[in-house]
Amino acid sequence: MSALGVVIPQSMHFAAPLPLQSGAQIGDYTLMYETYGTLNAARSNAVLVCHALNASHHVAGLADANDPKSAGWWDNMVGPGKPLDTDRFFVIGVNNLGSCFGSTGPMHTNPATGKPYGADFPVVTVEDWVDAQARLADALGIEQFAAVMGGSLGGMQALAWSTRYPARLRHCVVIASTAKLSAQNIAFNDVARQAILTDPDYHGGDFYAHGVVPKNGLRVARMVGHITYLSDDDMAEKFGRDLRTGKYQFGFGIDFEIESYLRYQGDKFSEYFDANTYLLITKALDYFDPAREFGGDLTKALANTRAQFLLASFKTDWRFAPARSQEIVQALVNNRRRVAYAEIDAPHGHDAFLLDDSRYMNVVRAYYEKVWQETQGGAQ
Amino acid sequence: MSALGVVIPQSMHFAAPLPLQSGAQIGDYTLMYETYGTLNAARSNAVLVCHALNASHHVAGLADANDPKSAGWWDNMVGPGKPLDTDRFFVIGVNNLGSCFGSTGPMHTNPATGKPYGADFPVVTVEDWVDAQARLADALGIEQFAAVMGGSLGGMQALAWSTRYPARLRHCVVIASTAKLSAQNIAFNDVARQAILTDPDYHGGDFYAHGVVPKNGLRVARMVGHITYLSDDDMAEKFGRDLRTGKYQFGFGIDFEIESYLRYQGDKFSEYFDANTYLLITKALDYFDPAREFGGDLTKALANTRAQFLLASFKTDWRFAPARSQEIVQALVNNRRRVAYAEIDAPHGHDAFLLDDSRYMNVVRAYYEKVWQETQGGAQ
Repeated sequence: MSALGVVIPQSMHFAAPLPLQSGAQIGDYTLMYETYGTLNAARSNAVLVCHALNASHHVAGLADANDPKSAGWWDNMVGPGKPLDTDRFFVIGVNNLGSCFGSTGPMHTNPATGKPYGADFPVVTVEDWVDAQARLADALGIEQFAAVMGGSLGGMQALAWSTRYPARLRHCVVIASTAKLSAQNIAFNDVARQAILTDPDYHGGDFYAHGVVPKNGLRVARMVGHITYLSDDDMAEKFGRDLRTGKYQFGFGIDFEIESYLRYQGDKFSEYFDANTYLLITKALDYFDPAREFGGDLTKALANTRAQFLLASFKTDWRFAPARSQEIVQALVNNRRRVAYAEIDAPHGHDAFLLDDSRYMNVVRAYYEKVWQETQGGAQ
Repeated sequence: MSALGVVIPQSMHFAAPLPLQSGAQIGDYTLMYETYGTLNAARSNAVLVCHALNASHHVAGLADANDPKSAGWWDNMVGPGKPLDTDRFFVIGVNNLGSCFGSTGPMHTNPATGKPYGADFPVVTVEDWVDAQARLADALGIEQFAAVMGGSLGGMQALAWSTRYPARLRHCVVIASTAKLSAQNIAFNDVARQAILTDPDYHGGDFYAHGVVPKNGLRVARMVGHITYLSDDDMAEKFGRDLRTGKYQFGFGIDFEIESYLRYQGDKFSEYFDANTYLLITKALDYFDPAREFGGDLTKALANTRAQFLLASFKTDWRFAPARSQEIVQALVNNRRRVAYAEIDAPHGHDAFLLDDSRYMNVVRAYYEKVWQETQGGAQ
């Protein structure tokens, strides 16, 4: 049971159009968010937690008092006495633009047409999300975060905060992330997108009007994604070649437990996740590349950062391997930034950033202890 | 231009039903095959080359005199003066049962119904293929092969020959293969199968009757498979984050060169490959596990082998990594078999087994030199 109890999501409406990296803009939008803990009088103890592909503003606490499974996606990390301690920090989770958990997204009405955006929802980037988060921070009266934090795609947002609003965060916590996707990462994303785009039920993005959902495409997209979240070893350990019934079926139903598990994950995902959102978010992943406008030089890209950094990676993560975090660490060191880096020997692959591991949790806990001591000593 | 010139495929009809591992049988079937070189008087210089997922009996030489692209899939390996020298050896390529290049498969008429087999084509295993190959060898008057050889799934067939017909091969050449798929390997196969099975154009396997092909499913299946054939590094080297037009498109068309490449591979594949065959062959891959009936003990599984072995693996192959070949080597060593093992530091991932690499080619060439010397000295 989450120690935070039930947390009520809030929403904030923004009337002023948000200019996007694409050149388009999005007007009249809403962001869903949750907060945990209390903002101190100095407004110096706020921490923004950024979400990854399929998560939301619901970072911690319960959505439903009667359902322990309604706990937030990082409830093991955020709460009273947790590594990011809500008795000390005022923590904010925001659902990103284009997502499907309440913030304005493809399933909402496009004011220009009176119909759902569908595939016309503008392609948003990590930088666009950060800009939208900054406006929310403005509205909440938070000039400077004690920390901005995220894992995977969330870590990209934290990193983008450090370059885009260098004075607005004192610490940047980037977990299991990367400064850019590799060709292989992009390839897996494109397989997922093609599965969705070629599903006849996708209807060019207008499936809402047809009363259907491209379930088959979403299901395959999730299955392939899910493989990349787990390590080979962990999958071998959990499933190996275990058979559902102890013998081969000689058909195309389920033989192996791993098939059962993956199909279940795909089915579940296809029931709640929006297909247009999936497309948008994979594009945001693909496009993120802060070094791009600096000729690929990450050191130059991070030259204007002012925060202190914690980076963490997991040895068995083959999606965003430790080497990808090390590149960021090196670029920060080249810029003489203060950086702590932990490489955790956890078996769970990329998903490890969401799981309990005492070494990992202790690293984050110790880091926030330092942040807290500084906050007590007065914001910089 | 292949030095073998044009090679005419042959076919052999088998009237006697073939009992299958599943308990079913297949009656009245045809195998397509090609041969290169000349069988010597002692019938001691025959080499069987087994194909992998999407290949065929067309191992070497040209299918079309006017089309250099019609060369066989291992034309760099097999031919006059090549590592497997057809001036010395009589080489046979066979299209496996259930495949889609001429041997009896799901698109052919099921004598029991008068309609195409479709999804009713019996699920065949590596062992079934080997049994069918053995019958072809009988018909060709080949009692014992100088070698049976294959890469990837072809290597599994070579390994199955060594246990199933231990006296019928003197050498067993297993390249970039494994004694069993991992959970991750099976997971990728199941993603591919689900993409095909849930494509509405699959029609439960009866798409022939509907005049359509589940192209979208096949395309996604091939895209995800293709990613596993290439190494992360090689993909980074060849494609990196190169953009098609030099800038982001902010849409779901093609941004990155890797997307263009993969979609092209998927499109091409979906135009020639049979969807039911894809399902069947991935199942044969999943099911292969000779140690299974020995409580997982590969040493016991390989105890009855009599051949000498060459195994080769490629350092950047993450589909069937070197460790998987090493397991086979260790089991053979435990049985005091003669084994040569080469681990090639090639950058091309799993696909390396099909590509030119002088170290790799020289290893195979040297091995067949030894086989040839033995053959000259008289068959064992």
